[in-house]
Amino acid sequence: MLPLILRHNGLITSKSRQLLPLIRTFSCSKTQFEERVCIIGSGNWGSAISKIIGNNVKKHEEFNKEVKLWVHEEIINGEKLSQVINKRHENVKYLPNIQLPSNLIACADLQESVRDATVLAFVVPHQFLKGICADLVNQVNPKAKAISLIKGIDASSKGIRLFSEEISETLGIETSVLSGANIAQEVASEHFCETTIGSRIKEHGDMYRKLFDTEYFRVTVVDDVAGVEICGALKNIVAIGAGIVDGLKLGENTKAAIMRIGLMETIKFATTFYSGVKMETFFESCGVADLITTCAGGRNRRVAEAHVTTGKSFTVLENEMLNGQKLQGTLAAKEVYEFLAARQMTAEYPLFTKVYDIVYRNKSPSTLVENL
Amino acid sequence: MLPLILRHNGLITSKSRQLLPLIRTFSCSKTQFEERVCIIGSGNWGSAISKIIGNNVKKHEEFNKEVKLWVHEEIINGEKLSQVINKRHENVKYLPNIQLPSNLIACADLQESVRDATVLAFVVPHQFLKGICADLVNQVNPKAKAISLIKGIDASSKGIRLFSEEISETLGIETSVLSGANIAQEVASEHFCETTIGSRIKEHGDMYRKLFDTEYFRVTVVDDVAGVEICGALKNIVAIGAGIVDGLKLGENTKAAIMRIGLMETIKFATTFYSGVKMETFFESCGVADLITTCAGGRNRRVAEAHVTTGKSFTVLENEMLNGQKLQGTLAAKEVYEFLAARQMTAEYPLFTKVYDIVYRNKSPSTLVENL
Repeated sequence: MLPLILRHNGLITSKSRQLLPLIRTFSCSKTQFEERVCIIGSGNWGSAISKIIGNNVKKHEEFNKEVKLWVHEEIINGEKLSQVINKRHENVKYLPNIQLPSNLIACADLQESVRDATVLAFVVPHQFLKGICADLVNQVNPKAKAISLIKGIDASSKGIRLFSEEISETLGIETSVLSGANIAQEVASEHFCETTIGSRIKEHGDMYRKLFDTEYFRVTVVDDVAGVEICGALKNIVAIGAGIVDGLKLGENTKAAIMRIGLMETIKFATTFYSGVKMETFFESCGVADLITTCAGGRNRRVAEAHVTTGKSFTVLENEMLNGQKLQGTLAAKEVYEFLAARQMTAEYPLFTKVYDIVYRNKSPSTLVENL
Repeated sequence: MLPLILRHNGLITSKSRQLLPLIRTFSCSKTQFEERVCIIGSGNWGSAISKIIGNNVKKHEEFNKEVKLWVHEEIINGEKLSQVINKRHENVKYLPNIQLPSNLIACADLQESVRDATVLAFVVPHQFLKGICADLVNQVNPKAKAISLIKGIDASSKGIRLFSEEISETLGIETSVLSGANIAQEVASEHFCETTIGSRIKEHGDMYRKLFDTEYFRVTVVDDVAGVEICGALKNIVAIGAGIVDGLKLGENTKAAIMRIGLMETIKFATTFYSGVKMETFFESCGVADLITTCAGGRNRRVAEAHVTTGKSFTVLENEMLNGQKLQGTLAAKEVYEFLAARQMTAEYPLFTKVYDIVYRNKSPSTLVENL
């Protein structure tokens, strides 16, 4: 029988770490202090990451071998999506033709999904996060920990709230983040890439590395949570700028300059409004690499390019090109602008402000590169 | 009559700076301490930058209004290129359809070109630099200063020599560098971009800013000469890696990861072998922006992609795709590898080493992303 201290949600304290070799010698192979993982969200990215998590828990003894996958239920050809996933081990709607591990257990009941979980991985569209967190109040093991894979930011004239803060403050649990140059389909196809995990607690970072790192999905852990998350939130504003350059056919010099200036404004924003943000974070996958990927392809870049070449508004193009789905880049540009405007700081962020002016104030796209 | 101290090649010392307002009051409008600029090289990039320099000297009183442009003479349709440039104000061979300022004086005699010059801007293909420097020994005003716009590095098992060091040591003059995301044709077309000047001496940096900065070509000056130059030298190795990813069709995640890892190895190389190199330099145009531009288009990326898709060697492709011209990326990969191998340090630069192995040791392109 293991000392009680080791049982609390698998948290290995420094004291218990000293006991570890001794315990391993005497205990049976089934360890008692295991992490139980629940993935909240099963869209394209949620399904891709569930493949990695499902496989990785089998490799490390500290994880329970069963992983819960919360599915926002829908009916696919007369069958429930959760049942299809459990039967065929494939998310036929959001990640077709990718085999998922059979130890992933899809579940349509949110509260049932998180019961007993010690690790919650949030991978939902950001607009659903508040509602999901509200539904989870008092349902989560208070000593569980979370990791947010959500990209975006909740800003307004009143202030900024990172999604990791939303989770952390609503549920009262420590929340880390994961962000990088990670197009879901390419990750699911096991093409080499990198990602960045931001975690304040070393033991959490070490555990998350085991949960996410593979030969083809290389994890770097940093302790700068806000830096990692803000990169993923603001890159889409920069991608709107990059798409405008593409539409104007200004070439590679100009596009690289806009991306660089966007990265500088991202760094400035992060370091101005959050403490503990480090320059080094922006050299990680969450920073420069994700920006490159987002500005090379991606819907924000694509719609912005079409805005220039067709003269149609972003709203019209969202309807035509995205079935009415909203762009993250234009939303982020608006929220960040309102936050900065309320503080008389828009002049310090000329690129973000120009993107806002072009999207929301009908300024000519060519103004993007004027007086930068 | 101005104090002698002010006359030396236009160098404004801190002592002379204090006198400046007084002198201006009493001196006539034609200032005596003027900089005389000579551009050494008139290829594509040399011609594009000569347009900027020719126009900028007219805007600032410290420059003589005539700018010399050294031309490696050749005959174009029965006429000397230098004469064509002076008659038509266009470099019909290397930058056709771009109007050059009429105050640029093309000259085919190297020693004649540099006579009286206080500022030498070197823009020649790197393989010609040594010969040109040798021809200039004892021909240059010993108090002149130079700026190198040459991208590349001279490395071997014996050591590294930056081109700025070559100029500086051969001619005994202080040498700054200019490097950035600057495709010549786009600069000549006045599309917005940025560049970075590395200069150890503040007065030189201030002067170079006046000589190069325009509304569409934005200059940032840093004091990290080696950092700026090494970015421009090593980016082509990374572009070979990016081209291999394109050829393998691994997608945007992988390409961004390779670019990021390449940037990290560049930073490591610069900080390991040169003192005074700063992380911030790599966020400038010479760093991340030039890397983005080079890996988006460019011949190094293109030939490497063709190596994967056709299976042909780089040498064969250089003949087929570049009329036998040599790639800078493969040459840099070889020189850097030999330098690192002589120091038993190749394992610390896995990407550079993998590029070398693929180009020179027939390793499979797919090995690029293994165990990175």
